[in-house]
Amino acid sequence: MLDYQVPAIKGQGAEQASYRLIGHEECVMLKINGPRLWASLMAMAEVGATARGGSRRLALSEEDAAGRELFGQWCREAGMSLSRDAVGNLFARRAGRDDALAPVMMGSHLDTQPEGGRFDGVYGVLAGLEVVRTLNDLGIETEKPLEIAVWTNEEGARFTPAMLGSAAFTGAMSLEAALASRDAEGISVAEALAACGQAGERPPGVPLDAYFEAHIEQGPVLEDNGKVIGVVTGGQAICWLDIQVEGQAAHAGTTPMPLRRDALFGAAEMIQGLERLAARFAPAGLVTVGQLEIAKSSRNTIPGDMRFTLDLRNPDDAVLARMEREARALIAAVAEGRGLAARVEPHWLSPATPFDADCVAAVRAAAQALGYSHQDIVSGAGHDAIHLARFCPTAMVFIPCVGGLSHNEAEDALPSDVAQGADVLLNAVLARAGRADGVC
Amino acid sequence: MLDYQVPAIKGQGAEQASYRLIGHEECVMLKINGPRLWASLMAMAEVGATARGGSRRLALSEEDAAGRELFGQWCREAGMSLSRDAVGNLFARRAGRDDALAPVMMGSHLDTQPEGGRFDGVYGVLAGLEVVRTLNDLGIETEKPLEIAVWTNEEGARFTPAMLGSAAFTGAMSLEAALASRDAEGISVAEALAACGQAGERPPGVPLDAYFEAHIEQGPVLEDNGKVIGVVTGGQAICWLDIQVEGQAAHAGTTPMPLRRDALFGAAEMIQGLERLAARFAPAGLVTVGQLEIAKSSRNTIPGDMRFTLDLRNPDDAVLARMEREARALIAAVAEGRGLAARVEPHWLSPATPFDADCVAAVRAAAQALGYSHQDIVSGAGHDAIHLARFCPTAMVFIPCVGGLSHNEAEDALPSDVAQGADVLLNAVLARAGRADGVC
Repeated sequence: MLDYQVPAIKGQGAEQASYRLIGHEECVMLKINGPRLWASLMAMAEVGATARGGSRRLALSEEDAAGRELFGQWCREAGMSLSRDAVGNLFARRAGRDDALAPVMMGSHLDTQPEGGRFDGVYGVLAGLEVVRTLNDLGIETEKPLEIAVWTNEEGARFTPAMLGSAAFTGAMSLEAALASRDAEGISVAEALAACGQAGERPPGVPLDAYFEAHIEQGPVLEDNGKVIGVVTGGQAICWLDIQVEGQAAHAGTTPMPLRRDALFGAAEMIQGLERLAARFAPAGLVTVGQLEIAKSSRNTIPGDMRFTLDLRNPDDAVLARMEREARALIAAVAEGRGLAARVEPHWLSPATPFDADCVAAVRAAAQALGYSHQDIVSGAGHDAIHLARFCPTAMVFIPCVGGLSHNEAEDALPSDVAQGADVLLNAVLARAGRADGVC
Repeated sequence: MLDYQVPAIKGQGAEQASYRLIGHEECVMLKINGPRLWASLMAMAEVGATARGGSRRLALSEEDAAGRELFGQWCREAGMSLSRDAVGNLFARRAGRDDALAPVMMGSHLDTQPEGGRFDGVYGVLAGLEVVRTLNDLGIETEKPLEIAVWTNEEGARFTPAMLGSAAFTGAMSLEAALASRDAEGISVAEALAACGQAGERPPGVPLDAYFEAHIEQGPVLEDNGKVIGVVTGGQAICWLDIQVEGQAAHAGTTPMPLRRDALFGAAEMIQGLERLAARFAPAGLVTVGQLEIAKSSRNTIPGDMRFTLDLRNPDDAVLARMEREARALIAAVAEGRGLAARVEPHWLSPATPFDADCVAAVRAAAQALGYSHQDIVSGAGHDAIHLARFCPTAMVFIPCVGGLSHNEAEDALPSDVAQGADVLLNAVLARAGRADGVC
């Protein structure tokens, strides 16, 4: 077992950091150039910069195209070739020793929320670029080609659905449907692609060896647990329900309490029960009532007709189904006990998306070998990787975002975390793509 | 003690019904002509009749003026004289033996909700007319003059505030402010009065001996208790509060339950607590949360900022104050326990309005002597009588409305209840106004 440090050997700080034992193999752990990656992130944030330190690059806007242009320029400087598909997904390619092999892909997105942050999406794209730059620095060739994807319209802030580009790439959505989606001003994706020069010719979807996406967590778990690396094991299952509660609207001043059928009092008891339900499914079960509306509400009228939404999540489809059954039963029981009518309608069901065991293991092994604090975590938010996972072996690397804050101009991440996440991406990708020089 | 039935002695069914002992006095109990009153109610309902059996006579509309015209014609036929004040309140007067005495007034309103019923307000006006018609039938003169008031814009459906005419009459609102109130189309009360020919010249407010208003209950209490007559002891006190609850908006998919500060879960606990608070103040204490809004709500965002209204009622000012204190304490305690910020702002406070003990006793005695089932009741809704009670000795007579339903085209009342309520009004008014023939 070799176990000694090797200082930076070439380039601008990229280094072969240490030799460590993983399983029974001896592997070289590499590190990216943290300051260079940070500088690229800050430079990209200037494209569409907002007054309060964030970025605004709505999908297929001039700003989005300018961001892609900057990225493309950096990729060409790193010796990569560029291509686009018909839905505007942008790919930068570094040839492999056997360039006929399916590529190992990294990536994420460069579009932002209207008042978005500097890291959501951008981090996964520029971490991929930094991986390539580091391999260039170190003179390392990979067996399989490497690609970096910039997926179109991930945020869903301009066109719906979110993750439109990766949906079209993986076949989750037809190309025609993707191109026909229109923004609030009636402009279609096809028109926007033409207007900003981002349309390619080849149809979306090519065989991939694997897909790795680095991303800020967009939640508080890693920070709260004091971990730098989230080894993402998959996307959780989501069940959206619509609940309508009907009682009897009546005068707040003339109706004695025992004669009331107050829909809101019933809903409050249901919501309290749903909070306790979440506790029974802790820690993985999540329960959110995000919207609640009283029909024809007035200050002095007893609510007679109201609706609320229910968002249930669990990494396990079977457990989520149990959560849904229990939620339905408790809503029915509360309604029954109060003489209310409650109707529960399914709105959307998204099954759990487990990531590929080998790819997840590669991420975990890299974090382990690099000596970075890490934990397994489930992706709570949607990501392009969720689509990719149904298409090819996929994994994600999470790093903390300060305060769990995202979709906000104040979104932030620590430079050290940014660097360590990219280190993990580098070594996991390298393990998958294979070093042409035979070094493990 | 005389205790025998006297059949109808003249007119269309009005009768001196029975002699009964009240206290130590022997009094003649009279009855109105039920079918005639019912026929008048149905005839008035045809003015602005709606497709589903209700009426639409918005204040100072053509329909409202037509209803007043019909009423005025009936009053003239009954030998009464008409006058209007500057805010359009319409008065029909039957002279007293001593016509210099302040009049005993009956009345209510003829305007309706946009899709209003046939009884709300109309009943009090036409019951007053039926009282006069019956006295005419029986040839009975009163010591004091009698008047019937038709108050302007009681409903508040066209102009705000509700009970505008009686507010101006009693000085609760200045004439100028009342005339300046504008409807949704910008038309002022002054303009509407001129347009429909309902403006009078004399300033509102003349001395009254007493005011009696018959009205449907607009709640379910009498029906639920199997009583025909509600002896209204006054109007309850009302406290309106606005509550804001602030937590932390966050992603429904990425935020573990223990790290959430969910404003809606907090509000649900508060509302459950408020429902239990009502039980502690049963049966008189009423608690209603009529409006609840989540700011920037979305199905997959944890509510971070929300508001709800609170309507607290009790017939006793001191008890209402205790309800408010306990509500504030429980809201603060729930917020504290959950790391939420809660702010409670006063919105409106209306003190209790006890009715005049003698007038209330006259109503109760009449119901008692007539042998009608009755109970004391507090007025939960607003009525012109609430303004009048601060101006002169006042009482109200409630009768049941079917299912407690009001402000609805399906509003209904039983003909027998309609007749018995007017019988009570007749005898209470007569006791107050005094029979010129000296019969008690």
